[in-house]
Amino acid sequence: MRHFVSVRDVSDLSALLQSAHACKRDPLAHKTLGQHKTLGLIFFNASMRTRLSTQRAAQNLGMSVIVMNVGSEGWQLEFQDGAIMNGDKAEHVKEAAAVMGQYCEILGVRSFPTLKDREADYAERVMEGFVNYAGVPIVSLESATRHPLQSLADLMTIEELKTRPRPKVVLTWAPHVRALPQAVPNSFVEWMKVADVELVVTHPEGYELAPEFSEGVQVEYEQNRAFEGADFIYAKNWSSYQDYGTILSTDPEWMVTQEKMALTNEGKFMHCLPVRRNIVVEDAVLDSPASIVIREAANRVPAAQAVLQAILSSLPDA
Amino acid sequence: MRHFVSVRDVSDLSALLQSAHACKRDPLAHKTLGQHKTLGLIFFNASMRTRLSTQRAAQNLGMSVIVMNVGSEGWQLEFQDGAIMNGDKAEHVKEAAAVMGQYCEILGVRSFPTLKDREADYAERVMEGFVNYAGVPIVSLESATRHPLQSLADLMTIEELKTRPRPKVVLTWAPHVRALPQAVPNSFVEWMKVADVELVVTHPEGYELAPEFSEGVQVEYEQNRAFEGADFIYAKNWSSYQDYGTILSTDPEWMVTQEKMALTNEGKFMHCLPVRRNIVVEDAVLDSPASIVIREAANRVPAAQAVLQAILSSLPDA
Amino acid sequence: MRHFVSVRDVSDLSALLQSAHACKRDPLAHKTLGQHKTLGLIFFNASMRTRLSTQRAAQNLGMSVIVMNVGSEGWQLEFQDGAIMNGDKAEHVKEAAAVMGQYCEILGVRSFPTLKDREADYAERVMEGFVNYAGVPIVSLESATRHPLQSLADLMTIEELKTRPRPKVVLTWAPHVRALPQAVPNSFVEWMKVADVELVVTHPEGYELAPEFSEGVQVEYEQNRAFEGADFIYAKNWSSYQDYGTILSTDPEWMVTQEKMALTNEGKFMHCLPVRRNIVVEDAVLDSPASIVIREAANRVPAAQAVLQAILSSLPDA
Repeated sequence: MRHFVSVRDVSDLSALLQSAHACKRDPLAHKTLGQHKTLGLIFFNASMRTRLSTQRAAQNLGMSVIVMNVGSEGWQLEFQDGAIMNGDKAEHVKEAAAVMGQYCEILGVRSFPTLKDREADYAERVMEGFVNYAGVPIVSLESATRHPLQSLADLMTIEELKTRPRPKVVLTWAPHVRALPQAVPNSFVEWMKVADVELVVTHPEGYELAPEFSEGVQVEYEQNRAFEGADFIYAKNWSSYQDYGTILSTDPEWMVTQEKMALTNEGKFMHCLPVRRNIVVEDAVLDSPASIVIREAANRVPAAQAVLQAILSSLPDA
Repeated sequence: MRHFVSVRDVSDLSALLQSAHACKRDPLAHKTLGQHKTLGLIFFNASMRTRLSTQRAAQNLGMSVIVMNVGSEGWQLEFQDGAIMNGDKAEHVKEAAAVMGQYCEILGVRSFPTLKDREADYAERVMEGFVNYAGVPIVSLESATRHPLQSLADLMTIEELKTRPRPKVVLTWAPHVRALPQAVPNSFVEWMKVADVELVVTHPEGYELAPEFSEGVQVEYEQNRAFEGADFIYAKNWSSYQDYGTILSTDPEWMVTQEKMALTNEGKFMHCLPVRRNIVVEDAVLDSPASIVIREAANRVPAAQAVLQAILSSLPDA
Repeated sequence: MRHFVSVRDVSDLSALLQSAHACKRDPLAHKTLGQHKTLGLIFFNASMRTRLSTQRAAQNLGMSVIVMNVGSEGWQLEFQDGAIMNGDKAEHVKEAAAVMGQYCEILGVRSFPTLKDREADYAERVMEGFVNYAGVPIVSLESATRHPLQSLADLMTIEELKTRPRPKVVLTWAPHVRALPQAVPNSFVEWMKVADVELVVTHPEGYELAPEFSEGVQVEYEQNRAFEGADFIYAKNWSSYQDYGTILSTDPEWMVTQEKMALTNEGKFMHCLPVRRNIVVEDAVLDSPASIVIREAANRVPAAQAVLQAILSSLPDA
């Protein structure tokens, strides 16, 4: 594997999943694979799960890790070609990415969307800038429109706990107090479409995902009907793609409750975390045995490890 | 040892102290004990000594360390059961602690008091939240009401330099420009009470420590009388417990001076640092051979190392 | 080598350069030299290249690294002797440096100038404070008046690419939107003066460097004439030393262009980065084969590694 910024970078999904399951069973099986190699983690936005799990994954492979919190250190990058840089942006991505690529064998990059400029966000300027100029493999730690490390961990979790070959997986929109990116639902849909599951997406009207993601996906505007017979309920808030970045609804009727979970096929509750309790999902669900959110978060380590392993194995000197 | 959040977690203080002294003599004696294990350090507040010394201690044991500065990354936790999370708190400690416990074998947590809500502070909601939900051992890196790693290093230092079996140890309040927590004096008193020392606490009226700490402790409101014949002077400012979190006095007469040190039994001067020069203590004391503050700070490494070693040795797979 | 804060700390420049070239050829030749030793990196100001390259260099030597971002954690130091510390400075450098020296075998320190108080800046109070009180070797990660790790990498790069024994090296001032330190040009001049090059400095009048640096250096106020026959063009903005810290000119005529590069002896373009495109230098130069800025940045790793190696080899227990 060269880069890991979307599911399209995965040539053999089944092999990657098997590798992730193997990493979980025996995290130290390849504990020297990354020796004397450095993973640089560049955060334009805050991170807890992604940061810790990716650091841990790298450590299991013997890699060194360097973390840069770009945002909090006020170092803004220019992404525009030909820009006359007389504003507040101190460096062009052409130099910044190329330089970091000199210091690290692999770079992880996290960069959230503006939620203001849809075109810029969906052009993935930050992630593309690093892919184009770093000269080393790039791992997305969540970009403007995707969160593939999360999706891989989600798929692992579904594989571990499914009780039938082709489970029904429901992605449900849920309310939130802030306008959130579409990266997690986009990515989840993108991965579920190539996995062996029956995917249904449910959300209020106006919350349709971008065409490149929603194409071919079954949408059900009636949440209760979507839940019927589901094996997995994946809850997530996102802001509108059409009326870009806005909150169209905060309707508490969309919160995931025990009552709704009762409609499922003893469905498991999933969420990428952090989750707003009693806004997105009620305590009774999150504190019940049906909730698998902590297992899902734990699976972030083997997921990241499988990705790093695949990339390390493809490095020119490997 | 399971957790290390107060002296009550130490079943055999003498053994822990011996281990700390041994760590100082030979820091690398157990250099692979922590191999392939990760210590997560979670800072809700800034830290220099605690952070560096604990990192160094972990490195001496072969552990990997991951540092999270929670505060500066603006990620606020909810600690209230049943909260409807529609405010500025993005995650409940139930999830946050449980997830971090999936990524790290041991978690260190620093969280200062509010100094506004006494009940909440003394309930130790943050530390207790992590103890209850992380599923892994928790090491206090200073909590709302205690700083046990500091106290262990303090006791080590006293043991190293005492000239008689039962030294007289005086904890003296000193002025400061800001309202400071009671964690260090609380903890110091808590540890000295179980150590073989004669403890005297001196402070202006109104600065009595919380009953659970001050109970059974000799208080002397006349600073000069307290200093008489002392072997160790431990200076520290704290804000009032009774009139919670307020500054009742900034009286410069309470500053530790050469003149007052002359009343002691060639007493040594201690402070946990950072210290305000010429406010808490005058230069003449701090720059004299009687000052042992740097040795005291250096002892933070073996103290932390002994604690980590004890916890590592108690891990299920150890 | 004991400290590395200016070129004066280098007793044998030729040996240091050879060591740096050797580190580049075989970065892991001394991969256990720094084992069980810790490098503390103390940043009073933000850093990308210096931080990443120095961390990488330390890792290549088997050292552990601890990074402290002092600035962003709001921990201000007092540097004045005898200060009554009742302001916003929580700790004196006497304690802070001494304590950090207890936890780390080597300390790296970055501290920019105020650009307001010339005397204080040129007295190098921060760097000198650490040199005086830490008790361990100090490596400058850029101080108020110098950036020696950058200069060493610059000199390495010139040695690698020079086409004649004594190349003509031109340091040219270039415009910028912000008032920048004189550390990089000061240091560059200081290093070039002891290297085997023909150095010419060109800048608008009023941008003369401090006498201790500019003494004996050929200054040419006509940029085009300076460029004639140059083998290396080193561009950099700086604020005025005379009218301290101010911007005297933003004249776009001083931007480095293809047209000006044509006056050189097929000269290479250098810059320490980050660089403002189309302000300091036009895209056509930076994107041409004549630009060696990425190689220059890459050389920061072997430069830092050679310095750390020299210091490690001089430690008492080495």
